[in-house]
Amino acid sequence: MPRAAVVGAGMTEFGIHDIPLEELFAEAAFGALDDAGAEPADVEALYFGNAMSGQAENTTHLGPKVATHAGMAGIPVQRFEDACATSANAFKNAVAAVEAGVHDAVLVGGVERCTPETGRDTAAMTRVFASASHRQYEQPAGLTFPGVFALLTKRHMYEHGTTEEQLAHVAVKNHGHGALNPRAHFGKEVTVEEVLDGPVVADPFRLMDCCPFSDGASAVVVVSDELADSYDAPVDVTGVGHATDVVPIADKPTPHVTQAARDAAEEAYEQAGVSADDVDFAEVHDCFTGAEVLASEALGLVADGEGGPAAATGRTARDGDVPINPSGGLKAKGHPIGATGTAQVVELTEQLRGEAGARQLPDADRAVAHNLGGDAATTVVSVMEVRG
Amino acid sequence: MPRAAVVGAGMTEFGIHDIPLEELFAEAAFGALDDAGAEPADVEALYFGNAMSGQAENTTHLGPKVATHAGMAGIPVQRFEDACATSANAFKNAVAAVEAGVHDAVLVGGVERCTPETGRDTAAMTRVFASASHRQYEQPAGLTFPGVFALLTKRHMYEHGTTEEQLAHVAVKNHGHGALNPRAHFGKEVTVEEVLDGPVVADPFRLMDCCPFSDGASAVVVVSDELADSYDAPVDVTGVGHATDVVPIADKPTPHVTQAARDAAEEAYEQAGVSADDVDFAEVHDCFTGAEVLASEALGLVADGEGGPAAATGRTARDGDVPINPSGGLKAKGHPIGATGTAQVVELTEQLRGEAGARQLPDADRAVAHNLGGDAATTVVSVMEVRG
Repeated sequence: MPRAAVVGAGMTEFGIHDIPLEELFAEAAFGALDDAGAEPADVEALYFGNAMSGQAENTTHLGPKVATHAGMAGIPVQRFEDACATSANAFKNAVAAVEAGVHDAVLVGGVERCTPETGRDTAAMTRVFASASHRQYEQPAGLTFPGVFALLTKRHMYEHGTTEEQLAHVAVKNHGHGALNPRAHFGKEVTVEEVLDGPVVADPFRLMDCCPFSDGASAVVVVSDELADSYDAPVDVTGVGHATDVVPIADKPTPHVTQAARDAAEEAYEQAGVSADDVDFAEVHDCFTGAEVLASEALGLVADGEGGPAAATGRTARDGDVPINPSGGLKAKGHPIGATGTAQVVELTEQLRGEAGARQLPDADRAVAHNLGGDAATTVVSVMEVRG
Repeated sequence: MPRAAVVGAGMTEFGIHDIPLEELFAEAAFGALDDAGAEPADVEALYFGNAMSGQAENTTHLGPKVATHAGMAGIPVQRFEDACATSANAFKNAVAAVEAGVHDAVLVGGVERCTPETGRDTAAMTRVFASASHRQYEQPAGLTFPGVFALLTKRHMYEHGTTEEQLAHVAVKNHGHGALNPRAHFGKEVTVEEVLDGPVVADPFRLMDCCPFSDGASAVVVVSDELADSYDAPVDVTGVGHATDVVPIADKPTPHVTQAARDAAEEAYEQAGVSADDVDFAEVHDCFTGAEVLASEALGLVADGEGGPAAATGRTARDGDVPINPSGGLKAKGHPIGATGTAQVVELTEQLRGEAGARQLPDADRAVAHNLGGDAATTVVSVMEVRG
């Protein structure tokens, strides 16, 4: 039996949005409600994600603020913050609440503004993002997130022989996918040579190995299994796993395996009663190209050590045997931190409904979303399926 | 039937703690676990509250960081932020999860460092706190929280004739209660004259109408009703209500009634099957003296307009007919934002067990906690009772 169902999905374009967070979130919220054929009064609670607006623009306690702008003043709302896994954790809690009968229907979503065009200075935002790494052990060393994921990836290269060219193929693939997505931050294709010619950000990552800072919002309507069939196009949520890990990279015995992702995936697959072999495609947290390689292995979509070759040989492209990030991923679609988790759920919903337009995958009956926070320390993995 | 039970409670002294947030939280977490006779491995998840460490000390994604220091690396953890109602909202979600069977036993708690002695400049923290008010409508006017609650209280004075002297009695009472609490930030008694002679902070509030900036942490172990009797001293949680309101004061039709508190109280009482008349004592969110007056009325503990007179005539003192804030409240116990909600639950637990030492109330079988966030926009009200 499904744990819950997604019956409405909405998101803004990811990119630059110079409007207040409340208005930006409302656009996604109304999109999700309209898609579900629902009114604000039809949802009983809001599970809301925002990662860093306190630091970025001195606004906290956003829950009641965005609820009011989405026509839900007075509703119980809770704000989640778990770094880049913020709205996936909101989704996990919402699915549990709906499954348990705490609520019959809820709205889940997230919002973030991160771009210099809206006043978020890039250097300052890099420091803000770094607040998710370890305050005492890592920040004093100047370790910002390109460095965090560079270290994880370097270890993977050491263990498995992964190459910079293989990483570049991840960027090329996701830019190619993003070019088909009208809501993607980047709509242009790139070549392996362009990626490898880019300036080094943090060895082994060059500029185009890195996802952008984006503004954006996403939201989904989650209802109980019992209510699902009263909506036009429900998609089942059959498993949601959640695990954490120690934060400092130096404390992780095998950093490149991203253990929390493996723990979360195991939990999600077990709930859904499936294995990685049963998954038709995945949206994974490719904040850097190396992160996608690690995720593809942690989810069991390819064997350990095969993440790099799988990208280079086209296995993870939209016409490969295990498509990864048909939306363009964080790399091309963009990464408005608190909106990313539920944006993955939006992509799964649209693909599983067959409503993904130019980027529709031909074979999309079951999919997995992988949203990661901080030093690979919080991971939420969700399994969704065409309603049975 | 109880919704859940609290079987362990722990908190640090509230005051000045110049140690990292992870260590500060661990002190409360281990206190709660020891009190329950439990090990870290006995809890299945952490519901964690922190309001503003991102802004105050550039550390976010605190969930896995504090979990690791509390001996729970790998556990699913979610961080909540709902301004000053942060850890009460974590408690609400934890109670729902345990009641629903999502988990059998969880740890709930919060932590904050706010004092200049630990590097949090008071002027800067005042701006940080103000991030919970409305970014576009209120912050540009310079409206910080003394002003927010001064406006709410001024309206109450206009409607009901509440006086500054009555407000001063709230401070006198709570300082008196706090003098009996070894964990209180302020341990000294004050007089009405001293309060009324203090410098004006925001009319009608003088210095001693305002709670302090504090450092501290609190935590409780919450288990299912089924598991409760396997612990030594369970206390039942019979109701938890949660409501929000529009944020800008100018948008509230009747600001002094704090509508979210009334909505949350109604929900909590209904779950518990009780009325305000059945409540033996309360811990309420007295960030300012006026806030306690408003809360005492919103909870139905005294009639509308009687909050001021009730304080002045001793009705809300520990030997009155409806004792409020036997812990000393935020006013004297202190207010480490993200720790305040669960600290109220700690006080209820100790009083209902008869373990409150010098501040023990003689008649304590059922109590209510009221934790408020932002411009009275998020409120969580909890009812707890001696196990039936």
